[in-house]
Amino acid sequence: MGVLSEGFTEVLILVASLVGIGFALFQWFLVSKVRVYGESGSGYSDRLIGEEEEGVDNLDASLKGNPFLFTEYKYLSIFMGVFGAIIFLFLGSVKGFSTKSEPCTYSKGNLCKPALANAIFSTIAFLLGALTSVLSGFLGMKIATYANARTTLQARKGVGKAFITAFRSGAVMGFLLSANGLLVLYVSINLFKLYYGDDWEGLYESITGYGLGGSSMALFGRVGGGIYTKAADVGADLVGKVERNIPEDDPRNPAVIADNVGDNVGDIAGMGSDLFGSYAESSCAALFVASISQFGINHDYTAMSYPLIISAMGIIVCLVTTLFATDLFEIKNNSLFDFGTDKLVKNWHLFFCVAIGLWAGLVIGYTTEYYTSNAYSPVQEVADSCRTGAATNVIFGLALGYKSVIIPIFAIAIAIYVSFSMAAMYGIAMAALGMLSTISTGLAIDAYGPISDNAGGIAEMAGMSHKIRERTDALDAAGNTTAAIGKGFAIGSAALVSLALFGAFVSRAGIKAVDVLTPKVFIGLIIGAMLPYWFSAMTMKSVGSAALKMVEEVRRQFNTIPGLMEGRVKPDYANCVKISTDASLREMIPPGALVMLTPLIAGTFFGVETLAGVLAGSLVSGVQIAISASNTGGAWDNAKKYIEAGVSEHARSLGPKGSDPHKAAVIGDTVGDP
Amino acid sequence: MGVLSEGFTEVLILVASLVGIGFALFQWFLVSKVRVYGESGSGYSDRLIGEEEEGVDNLDASLKGNPFLFTEYKYLSIFMGVFGAIIFLFLGSVKGFSTKSEPCTYSKGNLCKPALANAIFSTIAFLLGALTSVLSGFLGMKIATYANARTTLQARKGVGKAFITAFRSGAVMGFLLSANGLLVLYVSINLFKLYYGDDWEGLYESITGYGLGGSSMALFGRVGGGIYTKAADVGADLVGKVERNIPEDDPRNPAVIADNVGDNVGDIAGMGSDLFGSYAESSCAALFVASISQFGINHDYTAMSYPLIISAMGIIVCLVTTLFATDLFEIKNNSLFDFGTDKLVKNWHLFFCVAIGLWAGLVIGYTTEYYTSNAYSPVQEVADSCRTGAATNVIFGLALGYKSVIIPIFAIAIAIYVSFSMAAMYGIAMAALGMLSTISTGLAIDAYGPISDNAGGIAEMAGMSHKIRERTDALDAAGNTTAAIGKGFAIGSAALVSLALFGAFVSRAGIKAVDVLTPKVFIGLIIGAMLPYWFSAMTMKSVGSAALKMVEEVRRQFNTIPGLMEGRVKPDYANCVKISTDASLREMIPPGALVMLTPLIAGTFFGVETLAGVLAGSLVSGVQIAISASNTGGAWDNAKKYIEAGVSEHARSLGPKGSDPHKAAVIGDTVGDP
Repeated sequence: MGVLSEGFTEVLILVASLVGIGFALFQWFLVSKVRVYGESGSGYSDRLIGEEEEGVDNLDASLKGNPFLFTEYKYLSIFMGVFGAIIFLFLGSVKGFSTKSEPCTYSKGNLCKPALANAIFSTIAFLLGALTSVLSGFLGMKIATYANARTTLQARKGVGKAFITAFRSGAVMGFLLSANGLLVLYVSINLFKLYYGDDWEGLYESITGYGLGGSSMALFGRVGGGIYTKAADVGADLVGKVERNIPEDDPRNPAVIADNVGDNVGDIAGMGSDLFGSYAESSCAALFVASISQFGINHDYTAMSYPLIISAMGIIVCLVTTLFATDLFEIKNNSLFDFGTDKLVKNWHLFFCVAIGLWAGLVIGYTTEYYTSNAYSPVQEVADSCRTGAATNVIFGLALGYKSVIIPIFAIAIAIYVSFSMAAMYGIAMAALGMLSTISTGLAIDAYGPISDNAGGIAEMAGMSHKIRERTDALDAAGNTTAAIGKGFAIGSAALVSLALFGAFVSRAGIKAVDVLTPKVFIGLIIGAMLPYWFSAMTMKSVGSAALKMVEEVRRQFNTIPGLMEGRVKPDYANCVKISTDASLREMIPPGALVMLTPLIAGTFFGVETLAGVLAGSLVSGVQIAISASNTGGAWDNAKKYIEAGVSEHARSLGPKGSDPHKAAVIGDTVGDP
Repeated sequence: MGVLSEGFTEVLILVASLVGIGFALFQWFLVSKVRVYGESGSGYSDRLIGEEEEGVDNLDASLKGNPFLFTEYKYLSIFMGVFGAIIFLFLGSVKGFSTKSEPCTYSKGNLCKPALANAIFSTIAFLLGALTSVLSGFLGMKIATYANARTTLQARKGVGKAFITAFRSGAVMGFLLSANGLLVLYVSINLFKLYYGDDWEGLYESITGYGLGGSSMALFGRVGGGIYTKAADVGADLVGKVERNIPEDDPRNPAVIADNVGDNVGDIAGMGSDLFGSYAESSCAALFVASISQFGINHDYTAMSYPLIISAMGIIVCLVTTLFATDLFEIKNNSLFDFGTDKLVKNWHLFFCVAIGLWAGLVIGYTTEYYTSNAYSPVQEVADSCRTGAATNVIFGLALGYKSVIIPIFAIAIAIYVSFSMAAMYGIAMAALGMLSTISTGLAIDAYGPISDNAGGIAEMAGMSHKIRERTDALDAAGNTTAAIGKGFAIGSAALVSLALFGAFVSRAGIKAVDVLTPKVFIGLIIGAMLPYWFSAMTMKSVGSAALKMVEEVRRQFNTIPGLMEGRVKPDYANCVKISTDASLREMIPPGALVMLTPLIAGTFFGVETLAGVLAGSLVSGVQIAISASNTGGAWDNAKKYIEAGVSEHARSLGPKGSDPHKAAVIGDTVGDP
C-alpha cells in the first residue's frame, strides 16, 4: 500500500473532478458556438437565424420541462424531508439518541462518536445525495434542451456535424454529473472528517446516506419521468401514427409537445439521476466496506480513497475517449458510436476486480447492441415478424428480450465470482465502480439519443426538409441502441451495487449466513423475487391509464377543433402536458413507497434474515426483468425504425411507412414504451 | 402414531384407487349414454343421428391427435431409453457398480442393498413413471375426443346438459389419472419391497425415479403439445380472424383441424402429464424425506404411507364433490363452476401442513379466477383498453399478469413458512400433496375447458345453429378461467414440490447450508433466476416461428385454392397438421435439454453449492413468470370473449365481432397463446 502519498491522493481526486467540470464547460462552449444570431448572453433566449430557425426557436422554448420538474421537485422535497426525518429517528433511536461516545465495533479499544451524531450526519449526507441527484437531473435537462435545436440546425450540414453536437451535449452532461458527484462526495467526506476525526467507522457509515439520498431521488425521477414521457409517447403515437396516419412529431398532434418534453424529463433528467444514484451507491458501499476492513482500522487514507481514485481516473480516461469521438475522427456514415475505456491501477487483486467490472460492462454493452441494433439479425427478425401482424411482433419481441438476458447474466455472474473471490464484498463494489468508471461516456452516449430524438422532432415540427429528419432519425436509431446500452450499464452496475450494499448490510447487521434452507430466508427470497413484478405492474398500469387519458384528449382535440387536421389551427398542447404531469406526480408515489417501505417493513416485522432473503430475491429477479424489458423495448423501437428507414432490400419489402407491417411495428414500439 | 393398522392402510390405499378407477369408468358410461345411433361397441366409430350429427361425427374423427401422439411417443421412448441409461450409469458408477451390501446412511448399524441394485431399481421406477405419465396423457386425450362431439350434441339441449357432459368427461380423466398414478406407485412400492425387505432407505430412494420419470415426460408433453397447439392456434387466428374476417373454427380455415387437435394434445394430454408429474414428484419427495426420518428408521409403515393416504382420501373427497357438481345441482346459467375440497387427518402438525397446502391452493384458485374471469373488473379493464388499440391491450394484459402474482406468492410463502416450521421439508412435501389432493377435481375442471372449446369448434365446423355456439362459448369462457386455475394449482404445487425435492437433494447431498453470501451460491442463484427466461425465449420463439409458417401456409391455401373462401372446396387440413407436428417435435428438444442437462452440468462442473443456488434461483424466478404468463394469457382470451359475448352494456359498447376493439382483443389473445 501507498505508492501514492496522502497529499497526492487528495490533489488527484480534486484535480480530476475540477478537470471534469472544466471539460464539461468547454464542451458546452463548443456547442454554444453553433451559429446563432442575436445571442443575448442567456442560452435560453436565443434567436436563431432565418425563418426556418425562428420556428425551431419557438418550439425549442416550449420543450423545456422546467414547470414539470419544478412541480416534481416540490413533491420530492417534501418526501426528502419526511424520509430524512425517518432516517434520523430510526438511526437515533437505536441507542436512545445517546450523546455519549461508544466503544467502536471494529477498531477494538477505540472510542467512536455517539449515536446521535451518526444520525445527524447520516441525515445530512442523505440530503446532500438527494440534492446532488436533483441537481444532476436538472442540469442534464437544461443542457439537453439547449442542445436540441442546435442539433437540428447542424443536421442541415450533415449527419457527422449533428452527431458531434448531440454527442458533445451528452458529454457536457456526462462529465458534469460524474465530476460533480465525485466532488460533492469528496468535499462531504473532508467536511465530515472535521468532526469525526479518527472515528472512520462513524464517518463512512454516515457517508452511506449520500448513496441512499442519490438513489431514492433517482427512483422517483425515473418513475415519475418515465410515466410522464411514456404516457405522452404512447398517447401521441396511438392517435397520431395509428389512427390519423400523420408522422411522428407532427405539430398537428396535440401530445407532441408533451412527448418531447417527456424525452427530456424522463430519458435525460431521469437517467442522469439514475446513473448518479448507482455511482453514489457503489462508491459509498466500497467506502463503507473498506472502513470496517484493515484499510479503515489502520487509517490508510490512500487505500481508503481507492474507490474515489477509480472514479477520478475514470473521468480522465473518458475525457480522452471523448476527444477521439468528437475531434480526432469525424463520423461519415450511419455506423455511429464506439465506446469503452481502460484503466490501470497497482494492486493486482483490486485491479482485477475493477477490470472484471469493466469487462462485464463491455460484454453487457456488446450484447445489448447485438440485440437492439437494427444492424443485426435479432431486430431484423422482429421486423420480419411484423409481416404477420402485431401479435407475432409482440411475441418475437418478448422472446428476444428473454433471450438477451442470458449473456449479461453470465457476465455478471462471472464478475461477481471473480471479484468476490478476490476481495469479498469490497471486490464486488470495486467491480461496480469499474463498470461505472465509464459513467461520463456512458451518460454522454445515453443522453445523445434523446437529444437527437428531439432534434428530429423539432425538424418535423418546424417543417424542415425531409433530409434533415432522415439524418436525425439515423442518429436516433443509434441512440436507441446506445440508450439500451446505457440502461444495460445502469442495470449491471445496479446489480453489483445492490449485492455490495447487501453485503455491507449483512456484515453491519452481524448476520453470519443467509441460508436459503431456512424458511425465513426462503420466503423472503420468493417474496423478494415477486417485488419487481409488483413494481412493474404498478408502473405499466400507470403508463397505460395515463396513455388512455392522453388518447382521449388527443382524439377530442382532433374531433372538436376545426382546422386542426389541416394545420390551420394550433392544438392545445398545454392540456396534454397537464395530463402527463398530473399522472406522473400522482402515480410515482405507490411504486416509490413499495421500494422504500419494503425493507423497513420486512426488517421490522420479520427480522433481518427475511429481509436478507427479500433483498437477494428482488436482486436476482429484478435484474432479469430489467434487462429483458429494456432490450425488448429497444428492439421494437428499432424494428420500427428499420422498416421506416428502408436501407436494405429486406427492409423495403416491409415498408413503407403506413404499410401493414409498419403499423404492426408501431404497435410493438408502443407496447415497448412502458 | 398408528390409529390406523398396517393392514387397514394397505386396504385403504388399494380400495381408494380402485374406487377412483371405478368411478371414472362409471362417469365414462354416463357420458357414453349421450344418445348416439348405431353404436358399434367401439367408442371411436360412433355414428351419430341425423344429418347435422353426421357432420359432427366426421369432424370428430379427424380431431383425434393419435398420429401426432404416436410420433411424439416414439421420440420420447428413445429419450426415455437414453435418459434411463444415464440414470443407471450415474447412480451405478458412484460406487463402481458394486454388488456388495453397504452400511446404511441413516439407519445406523444396518446393512443396505448394493449400489447396483439401487441403480437398477431407480431406472425401473423412472421407466414406470414415464410410462404412467404417457398413459395418463394418452387416456386423457382419448376421453376428450370421445367427449367433444357429445358435448356439442348436448349443447342443443341447454348449457346445463353440455356442462355436465363436458365436466363428466373431465372427471373421467381426473379420476383415472389420479387413481392410476396412486395405484402404480403403490404397487411398485410393494413389488420393490419384495427385494428390498427392510432396507427402506434404498427402497424409497429408488422410488424417487418414479417422480423423475413422470415429470420428465410431462416436460416434453407440455412443451411439445404446447408448441403444437399454440402454433396452430396463432396461425389459424392471424389469417382467419384478423385477415379474412371469418369466425373462429370456421371449416374454411385450413389450420382449424390442427388447432382443435392441438387443444387435445396440448391442453389435455399435456396437462394430464403435467399434473401427474407434480403429483408423482410430491409423493416421492414426501416418501423419501420420511424414509430417512424416524418414520423410516423405525419402520412405521402407516406413518410412512401418510402421503399415499392423503392422495387416497383426496380421491374419495373429490368423488363426493364431483357428485355435487354433476348430479345434485344442475347448472342453470353461466356462472358455472365451484371447486374445493376438504380433508381431515389425525396428527395436528401434519394436518396443518396438508391444510395449509389446500388453503394456499384455494387462495391461488380464487385469485386466478378474479384475475382471469370476465365477471370481474381486471379482465373488463383489459377489454376496455382495447378501445385504444392492441398496444394498450397488450400493456394492460401484461400489467394484469404481473399484478396477479402478488397474492399467490404470499399464499405460497405462508404455506412454506407454516409447513416448514411444523415439519421441515417433509411438511412442504405434505403441503404440496395437500394442494394436489384435489388433483382429480382439478384435472376435471381443467379438462372440461378444452373439451368445451372443441365442442364449440365442432358446432361451428358442422354449421350448427348460432345458439349452440353461444352455449359452448359460455362453457369455454368459464373453461379459460378453470384452465388458469388448473395452471395455478400446477404452478403452486410445482413450487412446493420443487422446494421439497430441493430439500431432499440438499439433505441427501449432505449440504449443511446454502448461504447466499458465498459467491458459488449467489452466482447459482442469479443464473438459476435467468433459466426460466431462457426457457421461455426458446418456447415462445418456437411457437412464433411455427406460427409464421402456419400463417404462410393458410394464406397460400386461401390464395391458390379456388372456391375455398366460398366454402365450395375443402382446404388441405393435413398440411397444417404436418407443420404443427414437425415444429413441435423438432423444437421440444432444446428447451427439454436445457431443463434436463442444467442440473447435471451445474452439479458436475461447479459443485453442489452452485447447483443448490441454481435450483433455488430458478424456483423463485420461475414461479413468478409462470403465474404472470398464465394469467395474462387467460385474461386476454377472456377479454376477447367478453367483447364477443356482449352480455353487458359495457361489453356491447366494445363489440361486436369485427369492430376495432375486438380486433385489438384478438391480437392480445394471440400474443397470449405462446
